Amino acid sequence: MLPRTYESQHCSVARSLELIGERWTLLIVRDAFLGVRRFDDFQKSLGIARNVLTARLDLLVEEGILERRRYQERPERFEYRLTEDKGLGLWPVLIALVKWGDEYIAGGAPPRLIVHRECGGEISERLDCCACGAPLGPRDVEAIPGPGSTRERPVSGGDVAGRDAA
Amino acid sequence: MLPRTYESQHCSVARSLELIGERWTLLIVRDAFLGVRRFDDFQKSLGIARNVLTARLDLLVEEGILERRRYQERPERFEYRLTEDKGLGLWPVLIALVKWGDEYIAGGAPPRLIVHRECGGEISERLDCCACGAPLGPRDVEAIPGPGSTRERPVSGGDVAGRDAA
Repeated sequence: MLPRTYESQHCSVARSLELIGERWTLLIVRDAFLGVRRFDDFQKSLGIARNVLTARLDLLVEEGILERRRYQERPERFEYRLTEDKGLGLWPVLIALVKWGDEYIAGGAPPRLIVHRECGGEISERLDCCACGAPLGPRDVEAIPGPGSTRERPVSGGDVAGRDAA
Repeated sequence: MLPRTYESQHCSVARSLELIGERWTLLIVRDAFLGVRRFDDFQKSLGIARNVLTARLDLLVEEGILERRRYQERPERFEYRLTEDKGLGLWPVLIALVKWGDEYIAGGAPPRLIVHRECGGEISERLDCCACGAPLGPRDVEAIPGPGSTRERPVSGGDVAGRDAA
């Protein structure tokens, strides 16, 4: 395990990585953008140990990237949503990672496509629609299986970040 | 240490993180964008153990993100440069991390500004110039100390990714 701070690293990249550099953390954020909200769904999606997931979710809440909301009283149940600022603000980071992976790792056969809900155009590296040119935020798009998908069912039934998250 | 593969994660984010999710790796890439090329300079900049740095550089070369070039014959010395495709292709990932860190961690006082070499405008989240609107690649910009800088000397004397890297 690396130390969480880099004293000699006075840099926004280093500081960002202190928070989101741990890979599970960013995969949790990815799932949150894909509409996952509940502990058991994160656990199922990621296949990680429950205690690790608990620790990562707690950190993300503490850091203001996710917020914890009660959705049921008896028994009490909570869900996790991206905050409006620091959480949804990770959108360009996620898209940049998706695009790089699609191009240089998936080799042109992306497992998943992020497309403009209105016109079906793919999101570009510059966060706009390749078809109509509109700037695209997390609520303007949906994730659909791409040419490299091996899943039989759609990756996500809902839109990215959740339609009713506004 | 996390496993390097996520078998259940058929996703470009997961695959990208397998490669660059380890934080030192992305800090090496950041330094390479800032013009660092030599082992000793990476070591000085990052302050990590030499064996760890060697392992990370080897991995980045093996994965095609950096290339190793001999710049001296006796004794043999090598430098590391971002490859044209997979290496320089990380530009949007780096900028997205910088912008997020500047906004949500540095709180509006970025330690370093990435500005358009020609007009001095800052780079936007959409990878264009906030002043003149030109699309900006790694060779169009330079890094200068920002309002949150605590360093006495400029962060980088050269441009991002190195002027003569073309």
